[in-house]
Amino acid sequence: MKDQVHAAARRAREAARVLALASRAKKDAALLAAADALVAATERIVEANALDVEAARAEGTPENVVDRLLLDPTRVAAFAQGVRDVAALPDPVGEVVRGSTLANGLRMQQIRVPMGVIGMIYEGRPNVTADAAAICLKAGSASLLRGSRSAARSNAVIVDVLRDAVASTGLPADAVQLVPADDRSSATHLMQARGLVDLVIPRGGAGLIRTVVEESTVPVIETGTGNVHVYVDADADLDMALDVVLNAKTHRTSVCNAAETLLVHRDVAEDFLPRVVKALHAADVTIHGDAAFRAVDDAVVEATDDDWADEYLSLDLAARVVDSLDDAVEHVRRWSSGHTEAIITRSLEASRRFTLGVDSAAVMVNASTRFTDGGELGFGAEIGISTQKLHARGPMGLPEMTTTTYVVTGEGHVR
Amino acid sequence: MKDQVHAAARRAREAARVLALASRAKKDAALLAAADALVAATERIVEANALDVEAARAEGTPENVVDRLLLDPTRVAAFAQGVRDVAALPDPVGEVVRGSTLANGLRMQQIRVPMGVIGMIYEGRPNVTADAAAICLKAGSASLLRGSRSAARSNAVIVDVLRDAVASTGLPADAVQLVPADDRSSATHLMQARGLVDLVIPRGGAGLIRTVVEESTVPVIETGTGNVHVYVDADADLDMALDVVLNAKTHRTSVCNAAETLLVHRDVAEDFLPRVVKALHAADVTIHGDAAFRAVDDAVVEATDDDWADEYLSLDLAARVVDSLDDAVEHVRRWSSGHTEAIITRSLEASRRFTLGVDSAAVMVNASTRFTDGGELGFGAEIGISTQKLHARGPMGLPEMTTTTYVVTGEGHVR
Repeated sequence: MKDQVHAAARRAREAARVLALASRAKKDAALLAAADALVAATERIVEANALDVEAARAEGTPENVVDRLLLDPTRVAAFAQGVRDVAALPDPVGEVVRGSTLANGLRMQQIRVPMGVIGMIYEGRPNVTADAAAICLKAGSASLLRGSRSAARSNAVIVDVLRDAVASTGLPADAVQLVPADDRSSATHLMQARGLVDLVIPRGGAGLIRTVVEESTVPVIETGTGNVHVYVDADADLDMALDVVLNAKTHRTSVCNAAETLLVHRDVAEDFLPRVVKALHAADVTIHGDAAFRAVDDAVVEATDDDWADEYLSLDLAARVVDSLDDAVEHVRRWSSGHTEAIITRSLEASRRFTLGVDSAAVMVNASTRFTDGGELGFGAEIGISTQKLHARGPMGLPEMTTTTYVVTGEGHVR
Repeated sequence: MKDQVHAAARRAREAARVLALASRAKKDAALLAAADALVAATERIVEANALDVEAARAEGTPENVVDRLLLDPTRVAAFAQGVRDVAALPDPVGEVVRGSTLANGLRMQQIRVPMGVIGMIYEGRPNVTADAAAICLKAGSASLLRGSRSAARSNAVIVDVLRDAVASTGLPADAVQLVPADDRSSATHLMQARGLVDLVIPRGGAGLIRTVVEESTVPVIETGTGNVHVYVDADADLDMALDVVLNAKTHRTSVCNAAETLLVHRDVAEDFLPRVVKALHAADVTIHGDAAFRAVDDAVVEATDDDWADEYLSLDLAARVVDSLDDAVEHVRRWSSGHTEAIITRSLEASRRFTLGVDSAAVMVNASTRFTDGGELGFGAEIGISTQKLHARGPMGLPEMTTTTYVVTGEGHVR
């Protein structure tokens, strides 16, 4: 398996050299051909997916996980459109990030260049396959796609369609390759192919991400785990707070920017707790609360440290009252995964202290945590949301998939 | 030792929270106090260093390595001035990297914020201690400095002086901490303190860097190994080529941006080889050459694959003739460490193909490789030269020592 993964990586490196020199027009043509081909292959993709779904159900996979695996013609059309959207975005390659003429006459430019070969290791959703391949290709990099075993049949067809479409426009098919998922070791070989793979991005649950972080020798961008907090400040507009809490928790529960913990300042607890508990219960949310929350309604279950730590990804919410903004910040610093936090407040000073105090990729002030999303923030495409501090933090678009080179030009300058 | 390193990291995290909120004025005051204190402590520093140097010589350390360890009043004054130079640089923290108001009225800003806790693992040169501490502090991060055992006495005094000076201005002394170097495991514990340390930067030889890359679970920026190439194109100005080759090889041999391999296009070999061999020999350079170079002078020794791979850091130079620019690019892609390459050419097309073809952090066109340097490029301070593609590539200044946060402000916006 190691030989197989390394051979794929070597083919990807060769393809990446061609991609690095390809014009935007050439890359966009390949992406538009790929989008058309995905739509044309809808039936093949859905059929292959049905086998994946059937196998997942036979293994007793929970329905919310099966839902993420499931493809229907609408979802295929959606990710084909996603590929078209990537084609419409500006090309990050060649952008001059900074440039100047130095005192000695040397001209210095820092220029965006492709990363090279990007490995994606991901779970469940087969739509990630088309998304990731398109974003990497537009950014001038070849992709090695290691999806989950559960989506193997869907991914095989999608990648097959993408490769044919890319090749039909004269770019190398090996710019997009599937790494076999039938053997767990293929992921390990991918993340340890240092020198052959330039970057590995894991997308999935906390377990997957931890494994990649611990075992990878290739540089990694951690994504996605979202233990997300909403803090309702003493100065909050409580109607607004109610709207945001409900939206952040219930708009979509299986996503990383959904709220998982609610913190409420003691000064507004008496007013706010009965309202928010009632509204959350009406929305079928199970509240795991501290004593103050449990005093409001017997249906609130007791929260333990596990609740503060958990990313539920379900209609569950941990909830507690805090004595101060500083206590809220301390709670977040202790338990958050550093993805997104929100504060609801009318106070400029409170928003400043919260924003500077928590140490997260995104902070929402009087807005739902669901806005931490490349599409919502206007990036046009997103390959994931980085929760690490290196290279990219928060939603990652095309520029985050590139690196830079310094080009320094002189007339025989020496030191 | 693990407990000791983790305890230091926890103290650093607390100090980093204070630094993150410190104004530029406050940080600059601490740096200026530190610079003054270093100058005032010159005698103490030089005395401690003399013990390190004595011990190194007693162990039979080669003199070129001893030279890197050696401190005298001039060198102390130089790194104290380096600390002042850092104070004079703009504060990267708080810079708005991008910002916009979205169609729905949300205001989005991506803001530079401190990294948090930065671990430095480095060899030899004790001047790195003051440099690294100053750059991290200015960027709002606490530093955990793990120097080499050989410089332990020098580093202990330097850090002691820095901590006292920082504390005297009201910032936490724990913003700068030395990690004991007497036990090899302290470096391992530092690079595996994930969650406590945000970034580890190794500076030193290839062995040190490989160890950190393989063993670290904290994100790493690889620095410094420079197997640097100069390519003399068919269209080169040969006088210029001679100047650049000599400067790149002999200006300073122990640095990462010194040339290690010379590639000469076959079309100019007959003219250029006799001249360059003569000039290099006159400068005491040992040439490890291919058959073409050996044919010029018996003193040229035979090059093996080890010579193409080696970063000599000495008056040695590998040299060969290539049939084409493409062959030069292939040689570089195969053997380079991705630090810096230079091309000497009058041809715009050759410079473009070389620049896009090699895959390195910096490419010099008609200039010495010695210009890959934060000071030379106008960054004012440099913590190292990244040879990886993630986060920072090439010379790293203050902005590269920060991360960013997205702050999104609304009026109760929900999805």
